[in-house]
Amino acid sequence: MAAEASNFLKYVDEHEEDFIQRLAKAVSIPSVSGNIGYIKDVEAMAEWLLQQLISLGVKAEKRAIGQHKLEGKDVDLPPVIIGQLGNDPNKKTLLIYGHYDVQPALYEDGWHYPCFELTQDPSGSGRMYGRGSTDDKGPIMAWLNVLEAHQKLGKELPVNLKMCFEGMEENGSENLDKFIESEKNGFFAGADCMCISDNYWLNTETPCLTYGLRGINYYEIRVNGPDRDLHSGVFGGTIHEPMTDLILLMSKLVTPAGEILIPGLKDLIAPVTDEEREKFEAIHFGVKDIHAAVGGDQTLTNDKVTTLMGRMRNPSLSLHGIEGAFSATGSKTVIPCSVKGKFSIRLVPNLTIKSVTDLVVKYLDAEFKKLGSKNRCEVVLGHGGEPWMADFTHYSYRAAHKATEDVYGQAPDYTREGGSIPVTLDFADILGLNVLLLPVGRGDDGAHSTDEKLDRDNYIRGTKLLGSYMYELAAISK
Amino acid sequence: MAAEASNFLKYVDEHEEDFIQRLAKAVSIPSVSGNIGYIKDVEAMAEWLLQQLISLGVKAEKRAIGQHKLEGKDVDLPPVIIGQLGNDPNKKTLLIYGHYDVQPALYEDGWHYPCFELTQDPSGSGRMYGRGSTDDKGPIMAWLNVLEAHQKLGKELPVNLKMCFEGMEENGSENLDKFIESEKNGFFAGADCMCISDNYWLNTETPCLTYGLRGINYYEIRVNGPDRDLHSGVFGGTIHEPMTDLILLMSKLVTPAGEILIPGLKDLIAPVTDEEREKFEAIHFGVKDIHAAVGGDQTLTNDKVTTLMGRMRNPSLSLHGIEGAFSATGSKTVIPCSVKGKFSIRLVPNLTIKSVTDLVVKYLDAEFKKLGSKNRCEVVLGHGGEPWMADFTHYSYRAAHKATEDVYGQAPDYTREGGSIPVTLDFADILGLNVLLLPVGRGDDGAHSTDEKLDRDNYIRGTKLLGSYMYELAAISK
Repeated sequence: MAAEASNFLKYVDEHEEDFIQRLAKAVSIPSVSGNIGYIKDVEAMAEWLLQQLISLGVKAEKRAIGQHKLEGKDVDLPPVIIGQLGNDPNKKTLLIYGHYDVQPALYEDGWHYPCFELTQDPSGSGRMYGRGSTDDKGPIMAWLNVLEAHQKLGKELPVNLKMCFEGMEENGSENLDKFIESEKNGFFAGADCMCISDNYWLNTETPCLTYGLRGINYYEIRVNGPDRDLHSGVFGGTIHEPMTDLILLMSKLVTPAGEILIPGLKDLIAPVTDEEREKFEAIHFGVKDIHAAVGGDQTLTNDKVTTLMGRMRNPSLSLHGIEGAFSATGSKTVIPCSVKGKFSIRLVPNLTIKSVTDLVVKYLDAEFKKLGSKNRCEVVLGHGGEPWMADFTHYSYRAAHKATEDVYGQAPDYTREGGSIPVTLDFADILGLNVLLLPVGRGDDGAHSTDEKLDRDNYIRGTKLLGSYMYELAAISK
Repeated sequence: MAAEASNFLKYVDEHEEDFIQRLAKAVSIPSVSGNIGYIKDVEAMAEWLLQQLISLGVKAEKRAIGQHKLEGKDVDLPPVIIGQLGNDPNKKTLLIYGHYDVQPALYEDGWHYPCFELTQDPSGSGRMYGRGSTDDKGPIMAWLNVLEAHQKLGKELPVNLKMCFEGMEENGSENLDKFIESEKNGFFAGADCMCISDNYWLNTETPCLTYGLRGINYYEIRVNGPDRDLHSGVFGGTIHEPMTDLILLMSKLVTPAGEILIPGLKDLIAPVTDEEREKFEAIHFGVKDIHAAVGGDQTLTNDKVTTLMGRMRNPSLSLHGIEGAFSATGSKTVIPCSVKGKFSIRLVPNLTIKSVTDLVVKYLDAEFKKLGSKNRCEVVLGHGGEPWMADFTHYSYRAAHKATEDVYGQAPDYTREGGSIPVTLDFADILGLNVLLLPVGRGDDGAHSTDEKLDRDNYIRGTKLLGSYMYELAAISK
């Protein structure tokens, strides 16, 4: 462990309760970005965060990034808060990101604790419940804790720190990409690498570094036939039914074993390197973890590495549903005239939005022609997000690896997320930076769910981890 | 034409306006059986009909048939009204059925006329708009017109008439089957044949006799996997997804050309007789009629007889939709944990509910096994209705054929309905009677739709048709 960090670590141990009070204050402001009723609270959260940063010596400011429509009304987007601490050309410059907004939460949804009041588990487990505790106020407060420790100890940070905190992550991060673009050669200039703490450990025990995210292409197959819904008694047996065509097309996309049937798609997958395979083999994970998470034994395989790669480094295709057909309880003898089948493909290197869409459209067009139907069919890409993968041998990862060993006494797992975190891509692509995802919370934190929590130990050791990561980053050779 | 009918026909011509007033009165009572807000109106309609019958010399009475749940409340079922006129052992006894309740109707649904006020088309087309005008108050009033003419003319009916009018047809005819069963050897004893006017011409020009109805088996394929819905980013590529299995099973039921893929099912279809084929060939119908009805050219074939048989005498399989999957507009990256695929098979002789269900369950069980999925699958018959076909060479049909020639100057088409009218089966099966479906209205009456109408000409000639049918029935040899 970097010797310079020892005072810092001691300070953290001595101020646990203060740090928890800081998180409690943050959780008490219901900064829900997706609901117009909370606009004032999002503003209040931004202002409180700004004042915290200023009081901790950060040169911070709020930046307006335009307007958007919320529940039909034109309103200002929550401001981006940027801040800088330290400007020493001899130090590395670290860019960090977090979001101060949260998902909606209503007690009626099934919470066992007040949603916006940080509540310690009365059983003494160390769990601290509350909306935003882990997503993403906990990690932001951990950074503030690091700054407080250094301020109170009269120590300079070992790196220059640039901060970017947004208030729209739970509602699409609107305009953040434009802001990054516009400040590429301004505020963001000179950053050496980036760290984002906005995801989770794979399990509940093992710290991890996350170096990849799958992208996603979301498609609709639209089949149109008659100009109105029809009664199956009257018209069944006389016309080409759109549902018959759609179901056949959807059946040609993926096998029950999860194999994607779109010709050429598999060839686009980047080959697995030995180093990658080693990282997967080292992950602390069992197929039983998936059984527990899904409440059943429906895993495609019992092999750990195959399962992990299925989740993290291979594409997958899921059939989500059908719009326009009968979907209620009971029975209705309708022939729907117009149906939209929805499916998505998770993308991994080297699949791209475009290359996959080309294959999908070509394949489904050809399959539809084979049906000999008089209906019309169209395949539409709804939204697309590219996959992302970082160089996990970069010094930022090596620093985080050492910091994890320092704080947790064990090497981190190297994981990839099956889902997407679009801001990661925006930062990585626009600024051309190596991005490290360094989670603070555990896999069972329930980020968007009821009873969201952060474990006290993860919060306190997370504070130590982020601080130690700075020290290791400062010490490591590029 | 039976000479005895001439006075009757003259009376009808002289009392058109009175008859229309009778229908206007019936339509003005909003006897919606499916909505608790109209309970008093259904009662009022039953009482008005009863008093009409009594005033026309019918020995009529209301019969209570128990209770049911309507919008959560226990309420009395609308009464069945039974009546008898004539008891001459030398005459044939005809049983007729109709229903005095109607479908719901709200002006906001898109009506261009008041829903419960019989409105003459101002353009002079002869269309009379109003809920129940054609379904089924028009035909009942036509029978009352027949009785009035005979009463006023001081003539006995040529047959004994038994009547059964219910007030629950639009809401499932609950308990009517039990009532028929209980009165099989009571009120219904001695009926020689039955006539129901509760369907429509195939087109807008040609009167028809209807001698068959398709039955229906409605199925759910239930595929269950994980115990909760999952995020496709996190779990896509690691588990057996219920939607994949379901879509594959649904894809194996029917081809885009409408061919049912369930082994053994086709073998159950009764062979087409020459007489049947002749009836189909004679039907006044073109494939363009279907194009017009569906608003597109999606017919499976351009051959008239193949199309008519597809609708009337062959089974058909329609995929209706999926419960439990994503069905809204937009995109949701869900892996649904439990999905129910819904489809139905229209049944024709000699398919039965049971024989078809045996084949369906056996086939889908075997197909599911082939998938090698760890999910669970179950095939469930929701509801079943047997197909029905009458002997169209029966004297009742021959009488109706002659009556149609008398009144319309042309031979009727012989049609079958693609859908089902469950009461038909109840009467036919329980009482063992030949049932004739003798429609009054046209194919474009819009029975359950907005702007339901009955053409003035169909109402007046329909009155003549029903009366003439009685005379032909009396005259014809068994």
